[in-house]
Amino acid sequence: MNRAPQVEDILAGRFQAIARLIRDIDDQSPRVQETLKRLYPHTGRAYLVGLTGSPGVGKSSLVDQLISRFRRQELKVGVVAVDPTSPFSGGALLGDRIRMQHHATDPGVFIRSLATRGAFGGLTPSAPAVVQVLDAAGFDRILIETVGVGQDEVDIVRLAHTTLVLTVPGLGDGIQAIKAGILEIADLLLVNKADQPGAERTLKELQGMLELNRLSGQEKDWWPGLLAVSARTGQGLNELDQALESHRRFLEEERPDLLAARTRLQVKDLVLNLVQDRAKARAERRLEGSPDWTSRLEEVVARRKDPYSLAEEILKEEFG
Amino acid sequence: MNRAPQVEDILAGRFQAIARLIRDIDDQSPRVQETLKRLYPHTGRAYLVGLTGSPGVGKSSLVDQLISRFRRQELKVGVVAVDPTSPFSGGALLGDRIRMQHHATDPGVFIRSLATRGAFGGLTPSAPAVVQVLDAAGFDRILIETVGVGQDEVDIVRLAHTTLVLTVPGLGDGIQAIKAGILEIADLLLVNKADQPGAERTLKELQGMLELNRLSGQEKDWWPGLLAVSARTGQGLNELDQALESHRRFLEEERPDLLAARTRLQVKDLVLNLVQDRAKARAERRLEGSPDWTSRLEEVVARRKDPYSLAEEILKEEFG
Repeated sequence: MNRAPQVEDILAGRFQAIARLIRDIDDQSPRVQETLKRLYPHTGRAYLVGLTGSPGVGKSSLVDQLISRFRRQELKVGVVAVDPTSPFSGGALLGDRIRMQHHATDPGVFIRSLATRGAFGGLTPSAPAVVQVLDAAGFDRILIETVGVGQDEVDIVRLAHTTLVLTVPGLGDGIQAIKAGILEIADLLLVNKADQPGAERTLKELQGMLELNRLSGQEKDWWPGLLAVSARTGQGLNELDQALESHRRFLEEERPDLLAARTRLQVKDLVLNLVQDRAKARAERRLEGSPDWTSRLEEVVARRKDPYSLAEEILKEEFG
Repeated sequence: MNRAPQVEDILAGRFQAIARLIRDIDDQSPRVQETLKRLYPHTGRAYLVGLTGSPGVGKSSLVDQLISRFRRQELKVGVVAVDPTSPFSGGALLGDRIRMQHHATDPGVFIRSLATRGAFGGLTPSAPAVVQVLDAAGFDRILIETVGVGQDEVDIVRLAHTTLVLTVPGLGDGIQAIKAGILEIADLLLVNKADQPGAERTLKELQGMLELNRLSGQEKDWWPGLLAVSARTGQGLNELDQALESHRRFLEEERPDLLAARTRLQVKDLVLNLVQDRAKARAERRLEGSPDWTSRLEEVVARRKDPYSLAEEILKEEFG
C-alpha cells in the first residue's frame, strides 16, 4: 500500500485528502498510522487555541467570529469541534457545524466535528491525531472547541496553547464554574452575550473569584484575563484578538520553557494513550476470543471470581 | 497485613471503615485491592440509580429528596457524587455535599463526593470501586450523581440500573440535550423546577422529541418516561417514586435478560479498565525510569521520532 501520495497531498493542504484521512482516523482505521507517522515530523508549527464552556454559551458563534478575524490576518484556520455524543449512536449528531456554513467556500478554513466515544476512560485519540493532520497541512491557527464539563473535555483542552473558557450572564455560574473546575485551565475567561442582562454581575463575580485566587498566595505563571464579549454585536472582539496575541507572545517569547514543558506533557500523554488503547484492545480480544476466557468473565459476572484477579491473569498471559 | 477486620467492618456497614476504605480508593492506595477482592462476592445486591444533568439543574436537591423518600421505605441509601474537577487541584472542590448536611446524623445514609481525575482517557476507576464498597456494606439503594455532559459522566451512568436525566425550563435545551447525547441514556427524563416559567414549553419540546424517536421506528426495550418535578415544592415526587419502582420491576421481573446483559457489560468494562490502567502505569514508569527511554521521549518531543513508533517500542519491551 503506497501512502506517499496521500502524505504529499496533506502537506500541500489539499482538502479532499485531509477530509479522507480525518474520516479514517475517526473510523479508527488501522491504515492511518503509517500516514500519521510520516506527517508527524511536519507538525508543531500551528498555534492551538482551545475553547470550552457549558452547552448554550455560544461557543460556535464565537468560533465563527474568530475564524473571520484570523482570516483577515491571512492566517489559515482549522477547527476541530468535539461533540460529546451518545455511546449508542456513536456519531456527532450535529454533523458538520451547520452554523459555520458561510466559511464553507473559503479555502483557508477547514472545519470538522468529532464525536467523543468509548467506555470507561476510553476517549478516542482522534482529537490529537486530527490536530496533527491539520498542523501538518499548514493551518496556522487550530481552534479546538469542546463542551467544558467532563474530564474528557479538560483533556482535549490540554492540547491547546491558549485556552478560552466561555460563560454567559445568569447561568448561575459563580460556584458552578468552580465546581466544573474549568476556571483553573483558563488562560482567558470570557463572558459572552455581554449585551444581555446580568452581565455586569457575572463579570464582578468572576473578577472576585480571580482576585480571591490571587490573594490566596498561589503562584501562577500566568493569571487569566477576563473579558466581556458578544459574538453577536462584536463587543470586545478587538480586545480578544489582543489578549490572544498577548498570551501567544508570553509563551513563545517570554516563557519558551513553559511552552516546551507543555509540549513534552502532550507528547507523553499521546504515547501513554496509544499504549493504553492497545493494551485494552488486546485484553478485549482475549476475553471475547476463547471459551476459556469467556467463561472466566462469566465467573466474575456470577461473583464467584473477582475482577481484580481476572485483570491480573490477563496481564500475566497477554503481557508477560 | 491482615485486612480481615476491615472487610468484616464494611460488611457490617460500619461508617468509619467504609469512609477509610473509600479514602484509600480515592488516593489510589495499592493496599485496597486485597480488600476489594474480598468484598466482591458480597456485591450485586444494591439497586443503583444514576442521576445526571447540566450544572445548575438541581441534581443535589433532588438527591436530597430521594434520600428522604427511600428512608421512609426503610431503605439504606448510599450516595456517590462525582464532581468533575480540575486536573491540577485534584480534589472535589465542594467536598462533602454541604447541602445534604441534614442527613449527616442518619445512620442509614452515607454520602461521598469523588473527583474525576486523570489525563487522556484516564477516568479513575474510583466510582465503580466505591459503588462496590457501598453495595457490599448493605446499602439498598445507591445514588450516583454526575454532571451530565462529557463521556466520563455517560460512562459512570452506565454503572446504574436506572438512569434519571434532569433538565430545567429555559436552559435552551431542545437541541442542546440532543447534542449532549444524554437523552438516549435516560430511563426517565425529569424537568426539575417545574414551578418555574417555561416549564410547559420545555415539557412539550421534550415530549415532541420522544415522540419523534418513537415514530422513527427505532426499536427500544424501554421508552423513557417524562415527568415534571420540583425538588423545592415536592411536585411530582410521588410519581417519581412510582416511575423508579416501575423501571426497577421491569428490569428485575420482566426482563432479567437485559439486567444480566448490563451486568456483564459493567463487569467487562471494569476488567478492561483495570488492564488499561496497569498498562499505562507500566509504560509511564518505563518512560520516566531510565535515561534511555527518557531520551527516546525527548526525540519525539523534538519531532525526530514519532509517537506511534515509541508506543510500539514500549509495548514490545514491556509487554512482549
